[in-house]
Amino acid sequence: MKLSRYKHDSPFSYTLGATLSYELFKTSPELIQRVFLRPDIKHGEDLTMILNELRQRKIDIIESAKAFNVLNAKENCLLIAEFSKPSTLLNHDQNQPHIVLVNPSDAGNLGTIMRTAVAFGFHDLAIITPAVDPYDPKTIRASMGAIFHLNIEQFSSFDDYLQSGASSRTLYSFMLNSDAQTLESTIAPNHNYSLVFGNEASGLPSEFAQNTKAIYIPQSPEVDSLNLSIAVGIALHHFKNNS
Amino acid sequence: MKLSRYKHDSPFSYTLGATLSYELFKTSPELIQRVFLRPDIKHGEDLTMILNELRQRKIDIIESAKAFNVLNAKENCLLIAEFSKPSTLLNHDQNQPHIVLVNPSDAGNLGTIMRTAVAFGFHDLAIITPAVDPYDPKTIRASMGAIFHLNIEQFSSFDDYLQSGASSRTLYSFMLNSDAQTLESTIAPNHNYSLVFGNEASGLPSEFAQNTKAIYIPQSPEVDSLNLSIAVGIALHHFKNNS
Repeated sequence: MKLSRYKHDSPFSYTLGATLSYELFKTSPELIQRVFLRPDIKHGEDLTMILNELRQRKIDIIESAKAFNVLNAKENCLLIAEFSKPSTLLNHDQNQPHIVLVNPSDAGNLGTIMRTAVAFGFHDLAIITPAVDPYDPKTIRASMGAIFHLNIEQFSSFDDYLQSGASSRTLYSFMLNSDAQTLESTIAPNHNYSLVFGNEASGLPSEFAQNTKAIYIPQSPEVDSLNLSIAVGIALHHFKNNS
Repeated sequence: MKLSRYKHDSPFSYTLGATLSYELFKTSPELIQRVFLRPDIKHGEDLTMILNELRQRKIDIIESAKAFNVLNAKENCLLIAEFSKPSTLLNHDQNQPHIVLVNPSDAGNLGTIMRTAVAFGFHDLAIITPAVDPYDPKTIRASMGAIFHLNIEQFSSFDDYLQSGASSRTLYSFMLNSDAQTLESTIAPNHNYSLVFGNEASGLPSEFAQNTKAIYIPQSPEVDSLNLSIAVGIALHHFKNNS
């Protein structure tokens, strides 16, 4: 059993936990390579059902305490699926809004944003690198499996994203300064748009305010800013409900 | 120098980091007991200013690498303030809306909720125990200092909260099931109300749907639920902007 700690350049990643692994199994069973079981796991009804389905698809099931150590799983993690990281592409259909994250740096935030995106019907996520790895097991865990419902495409610059087929879209950039139009006064279009968010610490570079529709979420000067995943959540909810 | 790892029943807690400690210093300097400095810290202009202010208030400044180990600080944490945990009470003025969290269990979520609350002008937070400790250094860190702008009061039951002076308030309970009224169709009152949210995994008990105004944030069946801090963020933003 060859297995090493997750690395960014590995072709495989891992769902740490039975529920998360089952979400992967329901959406993309063809990606699963192997499944690791903690030897002391109790075989309840749910687990027996999952294992039977895995066996029907001829997926190897390996009992191994070592795998859980190598992958740094928490004690309550009883099942891990190893899967091939998919190469997904954005859907450029004008009816599919895009979320663009410029240099996101926190795995928990990125996973939570994936979860919120799917909850509000957004299925296309562009990530401008450098950025945290969307297939890091920590990101996957924070996404609660939503990652398997998304088209995720990484670009090395915002221009590359535009040139990939997004140049006709209306771009809404969320800025940290209050010169921009407020979110509350923004009427969302019903198609062909992208919502753009900057890095947790630095936000978006100021040129986005010139070249796109700049938006601001009014907030008290008592705090520096909203957490990125909160700002994205409020924005997605607004755009979903005000078009 | 007597110092031990943070415990829930300790009268003191800790701000891990210079920015966070400065936020504490700006809002509640009287709470600060001692400040620990990592011995290898570089004394830039900002730090010199902070240290001068601390000295003016006669706060002890202790250079100690050990303190950073004991308190499990990250490598980039250069300054820690030890402070007395304050006993704050909710403001029962009808113009002050309350946020009520029933059994929140995640320190990161609780801190992020504090940050969002202050951003949207909510300054009163009731926590129904059992719950994660609001003064855990992890919660404080996730709050980015917003905790020092809040009145936080803990209650051992929701009834205790009501009997503390909240019984005349209109209660809005955020439920996970779609029988409730949607958030988008809810017009917020401009005073005398409380927003109530349940635990991350289990939500609110069903009796809240009978005894209060039950609210639901419509979302795709592709995900189980929104992250708690996202649901709270969307709710606070809505109530702030729709009264």
